[in-house]
Amino acid sequence: MSDLIRVHSADSHLMEPDDLWSQALPKSQADRAPRFERDDKYETIYLDGERKHRMLNEFSDAFRPPGAFDVDLRLLDLDNEGVWGQLAFPSRALWLSGLGERELYRATAAAYNDWAAAEIIQRTPRVLPAAVVSTIDISDAIEELGRAIDLGFQSVFMPTSVPAGLEYGQDLWDPLWSAIEEAGIVAAFHIGTGETPVFYRGPGGAIVNYWETCVPGQRVVAQLVACGALDRHPNLRVLIAEGGASWVPALADRLDEAYRQHGTYVRPKLSMLPSEIIFRQVYTSFQHDASAIPAVEAMGYTNVMWGDDYPHLEGTYGHTQQTLHQLFDDSTPEARRLVTLANFEKLFDVPSMPADWGRSLTSATG
Amino acid sequence: MSDLIRVHSADSHLMEPDDLWSQALPKSQADRAPRFERDDKYETIYLDGERKHRMLNEFSDAFRPPGAFDVDLRLLDLDNEGVWGQLAFPSRALWLSGLGERELYRATAAAYNDWAAAEIIQRTPRVLPAAVVSTIDISDAIEELGRAIDLGFQSVFMPTSVPAGLEYGQDLWDPLWSAIEEAGIVAAFHIGTGETPVFYRGPGGAIVNYWETCVPGQRVVAQLVACGALDRHPNLRVLIAEGGASWVPALADRLDEAYRQHGTYVRPKLSMLPSEIIFRQVYTSFQHDASAIPAVEAMGYTNVMWGDDYPHLEGTYGHTQQTLHQLFDDSTPEARRLVTLANFEKLFDVPSMPADWGRSLTSATG
Repeated sequence: MSDLIRVHSADSHLMEPDDLWSQALPKSQADRAPRFERDDKYETIYLDGERKHRMLNEFSDAFRPPGAFDVDLRLLDLDNEGVWGQLAFPSRALWLSGLGERELYRATAAAYNDWAAAEIIQRTPRVLPAAVVSTIDISDAIEELGRAIDLGFQSVFMPTSVPAGLEYGQDLWDPLWSAIEEAGIVAAFHIGTGETPVFYRGPGGAIVNYWETCVPGQRVVAQLVACGALDRHPNLRVLIAEGGASWVPALADRLDEAYRQHGTYVRPKLSMLPSEIIFRQVYTSFQHDASAIPAVEAMGYTNVMWGDDYPHLEGTYGHTQQTLHQLFDDSTPEARRLVTLANFEKLFDVPSMPADWGRSLTSATG
Repeated sequence: MSDLIRVHSADSHLMEPDDLWSQALPKSQADRAPRFERDDKYETIYLDGERKHRMLNEFSDAFRPPGAFDVDLRLLDLDNEGVWGQLAFPSRALWLSGLGERELYRATAAAYNDWAAAEIIQRTPRVLPAAVVSTIDISDAIEELGRAIDLGFQSVFMPTSVPAGLEYGQDLWDPLWSAIEEAGIVAAFHIGTGETPVFYRGPGGAIVNYWETCVPGQRVVAQLVACGALDRHPNLRVLIAEGGASWVPALADRLDEAYRQHGTYVRPKLSMLPSEIIFRQVYTSFQHDASAIPAVEAMGYTNVMWGDDYPHLEGTYGHTQQTLHQLFDDSTPEARRLVTLANFEKLFDVPSMPADWGRSLTSATG
């Protein structure tokens, strides 16, 4: 490992404090915000009084890097890993998309955005939090989006699963797509959100469910393309984070085949092939996938970004440079440029990387 | 288009006669077999008295090649398209997997196999039907599998969707995997089977649903690998037909990440990485996908076969050579060899292609 690979990460998570909502909201609302309770064996997640998910403590206790809960330590972690800019999704606030009550969703999302603006945006330009907005009331979403843009957010988090009837292919979302497109920010979908993460119980369930979480992200793309939303909003950029990248050409081919072979039954018509719309507007992030770079090099899908998924277990903390070298040592310079830095810089304003940044790391890992 | 590309097809369909089950079974059973009823606008599919699916007549009336219902004409179609060997799934008998009554499933499957053996296997060695067996009683499945092998079948059709509790990751399937492995035939899953094909109603539904049908095929692979079935049966070869090929490296990477990063929670352990098991035992077929050949060339996933999906609307009848040239004119000779012929010949016994076969076609299309 002779040289340092400097990179931006298009997928990471903030770790909100336990008392985020109780500090910001009246008790009547704070009590119904996401709450996390632990006994000897399980961590249980409650949402508006209802038990949403239960998982083994050992899972939630899995290794956390030093800077998981502190932004100054986080920046040291990033320095040590070779990560300069970082898109950051929520952790606890990911569960807000399970809320069914309009006012509660509006208030908890606003409280999250205020916290992330004060504690992250105001403290470092290297970590870019995604805003949270209502996904059950579009006018609330648009209003909060405006506020979030004023606070300095550059992307808005969207859950990959939504209730039946509210699918992203439905026309009701169109005003939000317009607002996001006009603001020039990114619609940042993160896989495994908007649903409980257990699809299957049986032998190999941990692996199967890990795969299942990425399917709804693919469904989002299929729907946004097929319904014409991306065609009508050609400057709307969509990110599907943490779900890999090489599924995109496969899905694009599948949609093209439907569009051509079943053309008589296709409504609405699109102005170009689904694959062309996808390759233009859909971005993805991956952590370890060996097939992600070949998707750029050999399949013409170039909107691929790397992500560290800091500070989660699926991420690369502690082996970031090792992973990056496995991914890029044999890649073309162009693929490396796009995936490590250029695509991120196309989507986000991030401060320039100092020329000497990471030199000490080079010697430490060299 | 100067040269003829000669190919085997790993995905096509027989078109069973209307009276298959009424000819072969007592009226009490025949009346409950799949039945297709048409009025002015819709074709409706009944199964054991229950309405299973309804689709526009124009969809089912879509263009059929001349040999759709006649094996002699079919061989002429294949000659004209440049297709030598052809794996053939059922059409109407695909619906048998929706049956819930053991005896009815057993009898209708056996009647289908008898018909396909007499009308296809006995009449040409170039078209290789997949046998149909019960998917609700494993002992019935194993018994019929033995009979089918005696009749000359080289693969067994499996639906990609099964009822909850009967997922392919469950241990109950293991005796069938053993029987298939021992017989040396192929477990041939076909996408879009075992379920009604409408997942989503809304703008772009035709495209979205076409994509949705391929997801359960991916789920089959995730489950068969994660539960250890493919690891315990290293000679079991699985085909996922008609769903594309380039999703395989993406899925393999995803399972590898789960296996490594969530290792503590993974049961059972496997003897190698999920990707290694998949690349060894999982075969796929595609029709038009531009990303399928790069998956072979650049991602190391070589078990890819082409399929014509004859005589269906998603297939290539009438433009087979044009599609093959788009796919292979710039491919490596090794990828072309594997995808057009070699992988098929590794899985199936098919008569040798006469050296001069297709010469007339060459001049006709040249």
